[in-house]
Amino acid sequence: MAPPVSPLAPASTPALAPIPGVRFASFAAGIRYKARADLMIAVCDPGTAVGGVLTRSLTASAPVLSCRDHLKGGSGRVLVVNAGNANTFTGRQGVKDVADTCAAAAREFGCKPEEVFVSSTGTIGVRLPAEKILNALPQMKTALSEAAWMDAARAIMTTDTFPKLVTRTAKIGGAPVTINGFCKGSGMIAPDMGTMLAYVFTDAKLSANAVQAMLATGTDKSFNCMTVDSDTSTSDTLLMFATGKAAHDAVTDAGDPRIQDFRAALDELLIEMAQLVARDGEGATKFIEIRVTGAEHDQAAKRIALSIANSPLVKTAIAGEDANWGRIVMAVGKAGERADRDKLAIAIGGVVITRDGEPVPGYDETPVVAHMKGQKIDIDVDVGIAKGKATVWTCDLTHGYIDINGSYRT
Amino acid sequence: MAPPVSPLAPASTPALAPIPGVRFASFAAGIRYKARADLMIAVCDPGTAVGGVLTRSLTASAPVLSCRDHLKGGSGRVLVVNAGNANTFTGRQGVKDVADTCAAAAREFGCKPEEVFVSSTGTIGVRLPAEKILNALPQMKTALSEAAWMDAARAIMTTDTFPKLVTRTAKIGGAPVTINGFCKGSGMIAPDMGTMLAYVFTDAKLSANAVQAMLATGTDKSFNCMTVDSDTSTSDTLLMFATGKAAHDAVTDAGDPRIQDFRAALDELLIEMAQLVARDGEGATKFIEIRVTGAEHDQAAKRIALSIANSPLVKTAIAGEDANWGRIVMAVGKAGERADRDKLAIAIGGVVITRDGEPVPGYDETPVVAHMKGQKIDIDVDVGIAKGKATVWTCDLTHGYIDINGSYRT
Repeated sequence: MAPPVSPLAPASTPALAPIPGVRFASFAAGIRYKARADLMIAVCDPGTAVGGVLTRSLTASAPVLSCRDHLKGGSGRVLVVNAGNANTFTGRQGVKDVADTCAAAAREFGCKPEEVFVSSTGTIGVRLPAEKILNALPQMKTALSEAAWMDAARAIMTTDTFPKLVTRTAKIGGAPVTINGFCKGSGMIAPDMGTMLAYVFTDAKLSANAVQAMLATGTDKSFNCMTVDSDTSTSDTLLMFATGKAAHDAVTDAGDPRIQDFRAALDELLIEMAQLVARDGEGATKFIEIRVTGAEHDQAAKRIALSIANSPLVKTAIAGEDANWGRIVMAVGKAGERADRDKLAIAIGGVVITRDGEPVPGYDETPVVAHMKGQKIDIDVDVGIAKGKATVWTCDLTHGYIDINGSYRT
Repeated sequence: MAPPVSPLAPASTPALAPIPGVRFASFAAGIRYKARADLMIAVCDPGTAVGGVLTRSLTASAPVLSCRDHLKGGSGRVLVVNAGNANTFTGRQGVKDVADTCAAAAREFGCKPEEVFVSSTGTIGVRLPAEKILNALPQMKTALSEAAWMDAARAIMTTDTFPKLVTRTAKIGGAPVTINGFCKGSGMIAPDMGTMLAYVFTDAKLSANAVQAMLATGTDKSFNCMTVDSDTSTSDTLLMFATGKAAHDAVTDAGDPRIQDFRAALDELLIEMAQLVARDGEGATKFIEIRVTGAEHDQAAKRIALSIANSPLVKTAIAGEDANWGRIVMAVGKAGERADRDKLAIAIGGVVITRDGEPVPGYDETPVVAHMKGQKIDIDVDVGIAKGKATVWTCDLTHGYIDINGSYRT
């Protein structure tokens, strides 16, 4: 009954090198799924700095509230993630289930409960069978491996059709460092200063403040520029663990020029992760990149781009391979940002369709129709007001989305 | 190829009584459709007051810009509406096409161009063949009829599956007055201080200011509380014409106690019209009423209700008859308004599912599952913060919406 792998999945998945100081284990705990791993832990050595960005939803899950609290300490030792149950809207019991998980993991791995980070995604409003997690921890401890990236990425999947792993390398003070990440998510995706579940690990020697600062700016250019269906999850969580095992001096300031190369690599990695989520959007058949220029400021450009990306009419037209650019005009108009109909220029697949508020004279739709048949759709909108710009990624809206979401619980 | 009539269409359409002072004609002008009327005119006697509410879209259509200008005069003599072409994003030519139409109608019917109101809906970005309208006017003049409500309502339809007509009566100063309205719209529906196309006619003797004031408040409780797909149209237009033929003294102030009964009837009529649009939402199989109470203020309640109504995950779950109330929790959380997870109460079909931030003990889904199989879905959300409340109407999101919008232009 598993849906087929998204046609937009990358042709190959990168092999991730070990990061000194972090090991993984996964386990079929039977929380919701049968015959597959649905529980994952990552255990980091003492001295690992952690930063995170979480959903702004006002009905955030119990694990999100716990992460928010634990991030204050800046030290990350254990990550516990289950798939199939979101532990959201589960009242005091849900809060207790997270606390019990943190306490048990702290005992098992010799750290403080505040150094344990828990994430859960899946059905909302059903009690998490936390005892299944507690019972699994001792077994999982014996199975920890530096190499188990792929199994870890698979264990956190819900409606995802492929595991999402990304890797980059950079140099800090001449020393090589590695940044690895994996994430999940394909529906209820419209991150608001957070994301679905995404985890980044590096051996760089960074303070928690530096990690936090880099994540916050990096998220704004990656996960916060991506949407599947405009529905912001209650569980969005991005955490980054820096084990500090690399051979360079400690960096405590995100503005330090020594980590310029690292920051660029991290930004790239976050963007690639965000794009992988859009490529696995529920029912997706087209990956869409929307570039808006000429807006009043960057934030305005982003709002216009998201208005296009979240428009069901734009998304269904693309699913139908219809170059219906009038719907892009509509979405620009409803965004609420300054726009001037008579300066608006729209291009699809690099072909300029409108300029100065009208279709260009002699507009020939043929190359645009050909572009619409491809898997990657490029939309460029110049608002013609000022210099604000933004790029946003999304996918089309198809019958597959309706199929998946008409019967998710059953 | 016409889609079947919405299963949510009313069992019968009311017969509308004539309104003294207004006559209609419709005509198959071949603007886009074949073998059906796609052009409608209404001609009002001298002395008719007009008010209107228009889209706030920043890429509003040429006819909307013209209506905005002409509303300043407060006098309405001719209404010209075509279906199939939105005359939106058509540059200076589009503006000229509207001006030419106003000039021609003014000549034909002996009024000023500023007393002519034009509306167009349909495809965006294609030049309107205005000469087809100009050529039709003389013939249409000979066909004007006080009784032709149904034909008028049919001529303005695009993807609508049924004509939408509503009638009310009221008394002003003891004299009976009639209020008739018709409207169209089933996609690109998320009115923002306007609506799709909706026209109201009354024989009440009202000043343009009074009409305008009543429309503005009435719209906020009706069309602005309705959404199909969150996509705000570039053409939303609501106009109300008051011919002044009724046997009561003129009323110039919307606050006048003599028109209390009239206002109540008008509000009812606007709500019924808005509900008819939601009932004809593209692909709709369920009509959904969402009542939010206990919010910080009424505007916050409306934002929360619209967040639920526009959530593709909520709408697809309802299409699948899945009582997935966790998605309502998600939509409350993403609305950005004050909410307290631990006070949130949700009921579907009158059955309380959650209270105090948890499922109610012993929650039995059976009656809710039965309710989900019906055509009218009732959702009640109490936020538990203060006294703000709002009611919003929408429809579900089905394969039909994808079918209709994947190939609208072809």
